[in-house]
Amino acid sequence: MSKSDTSISINVKHAATVNETRIRVRYADTDQMGVVYHANHFIWFEVGRVELLRQFGFSYKDMEREDGCFIAVIDARCRYKAPVHYDDEVIVRTYLKHVREKVLRFGYELRRTESGELLAEGETTHIVANAQMKTRTLPEKYMRVFRAAVGKKNVEASS
Amino acid sequence: MSKSDTSISINVKHAATVNETRIRVRYADTDQMGVVYHANHFIWFEVGRVELLRQFGFSYKDMEREDGCFIAVIDARCRYKAPVHYDDEVIVRTYLKHVREKVLRFGYELRRTESGELLAEGETTHIVANAQMKTRTLPEKYMRVFRAAVGKKNVEASS
Amino acid sequence: MSKSDTSISINVKHAATVNETRIRVRYADTDQMGVVYHANHFIWFEVGRVELLRQFGFSYKDMEREDGCFIAVIDARCRYKAPVHYDDEVIVRTYLKHVREKVLRFGYELRRTESGELLAEGETTHIVANAQMKTRTLPEKYMRVFRAAVGKKNVEASS
Amino acid sequence: MSKSDTSISINVKHAATVNETRIRVRYADTDQMGVVYHANHFIWFEVGRVELLRQFGFSYKDMEREDGCFIAVIDARCRYKAPVHYDDEVIVRTYLKHVREKVLRFGYELRRTESGELLAEGETTHIVANAQMKTRTLPEKYMRVFRAAVGKKNVEASS
Repeated sequence: MSKSDTSISINVKHAATVNETRIRVRYADTDQMGVVYHANHFIWFEVGRVELLRQFGFSYKDMEREDGCFIAVIDARCRYKAPVHYDDEVIVRTYLKHVREKVLRFGYELRRTESGELLAEGETTHIVANAQMKTRTLPEKYMRVFRAAVGKKNVEASS
Repeated sequence: MSKSDTSISINVKHAATVNETRIRVRYADTDQMGVVYHANHFIWFEVGRVELLRQFGFSYKDMEREDGCFIAVIDARCRYKAPVHYDDEVIVRTYLKHVREKVLRFGYELRRTESGELLAEGETTHIVANAQMKTRTLPEKYMRVFRAAVGKKNVEASS
Repeated sequence: MSKSDTSISINVKHAATVNETRIRVRYADTDQMGVVYHANHFIWFEVGRVELLRQFGFSYKDMEREDGCFIAVIDARCRYKAPVHYDDEVIVRTYLKHVREKVLRFGYELRRTESGELLAEGETTHIVANAQMKTRTLPEKYMRVFRAAVGKKNVEASS
Repeated sequence: MSKSDTSISINVKHAATVNETRIRVRYADTDQMGVVYHANHFIWFEVGRVELLRQFGFSYKDMEREDGCFIAVIDARCRYKAPVHYDDEVIVRTYLKHVREKVLRFGYELRRTESGELLAEGETTHIVANAQMKTRTLPEKYMRVFRAAVGKKNVEASS
């Protein structure tokens, strides 16, 4: 699940700025409509976000514990393009859309692994907070990497 | 939980078009940041939506089973204004923002019961589908009520 | 949801030792089998447990925050008797089965409000821990009430 | 996530009867105690169960869709041995404990990948049902494989 699995045609530069993580749909994710319940997409976005950070060389766990940086969601949106079914394998593509000292915005695409079909698109906006949930600035070691990564979504590789 | 609990000062017209449902935050809703995990707000929106329909005289269960009308989410958004804590009581205010024959849009506000503080705002857009997930038009009995309710959010009553 | 709703025939002694809380089944609780996913019963048990404590005059939130008492689950079991469906109203009956200085065991019954049908039975065992997750003894103010409540499930009132 | 990842020292016979699947703990899995909320262990058991069936050559999705066999939970239990933390990698070991024509029982162990520490043990019992939730017997193609697999948990391979 946590593998950053960059597909064959994607070059190194792409690999550094877009994370691709595979999720297997669980029975628990479905509802009685026979498809994935819509709140679960946001959980998958979170999985992708954490794996993108790991790909950047950071552990979100350590961001919290060692640097006292909490990435709290202030806005979340998802546009649902196609139903997702039990046992489907889904690729979560995550990239940084925007970064400022106290604000981060991530973008997401969910695609069916088998067909490449676009299942959903979304974005989440976060403020950087300390353990007391007050806003703070991101340490420079993160800013440097995040700034370099912003906007480097190779759109041509996404389909 | 499922009570439509209209507060004292709200008039009958308001009561008919905005639903207020109370939710008690469960331990399961929290995450290690000590606040409600952000995907759960969408589950509360769903609770509010169902209770608004019930207030209109409809049961979503029967819409599915008897009328073959499935209200599938195509867009969902939430703006988080303040953290929500374990054991808080939250009021979910739900109203219809927009209705067309095959599309419904609901708006939501989450407020802390005790203080009235705004915790989150959101909206969800839905298409009307049949059991095979093909779009269909809403039966007239729903359309009539939904059209009457749209836009009748008494903003002054919301605080 | 959080109302302790003791039904008509139950006497005061019963009301003090068994909590009855009503839950409305959410769409999010269901899976593609068209029934409530089995892990959710444990979340309902947690709701019942917290409401039983509230009925005893305690807030679990304050137990954690003010007394540093965490009730950590060490064993959980559920026997499923009948499927639970979307929009059903379920009564969670919770009572204390066993108490020692560092261990608590709760029992649960889930019944359909409308028919009284037994939907599930379960129990959970907990150790009392401090904020560092080390076992500790329950303060006397809790012990006194818990000891008085143990075993006082009026079985005749449960059907 | 869905890889059956048998560790190096395990022989072929073991690989056929015990499934090992790795799970990365998500932020959504945690609660404000800073550990995984206890109901989520049952979701991981479900993931393991599905992967064990896949290892046997079956897809649970097809069991439902093509053979009309639903594996409905009638009893679930978990004993929690150690807290599980955010971002931990957990190995879910799943095996068949018992099989009859209409009843299946699975056993589970959760271990921290890094240390091998036992985190939880559990079992779930299921009846075989048709789409109308009436009990039915398992088709012979499943019975043959399940009977061969029962009880073949190589305990010495589990640490």
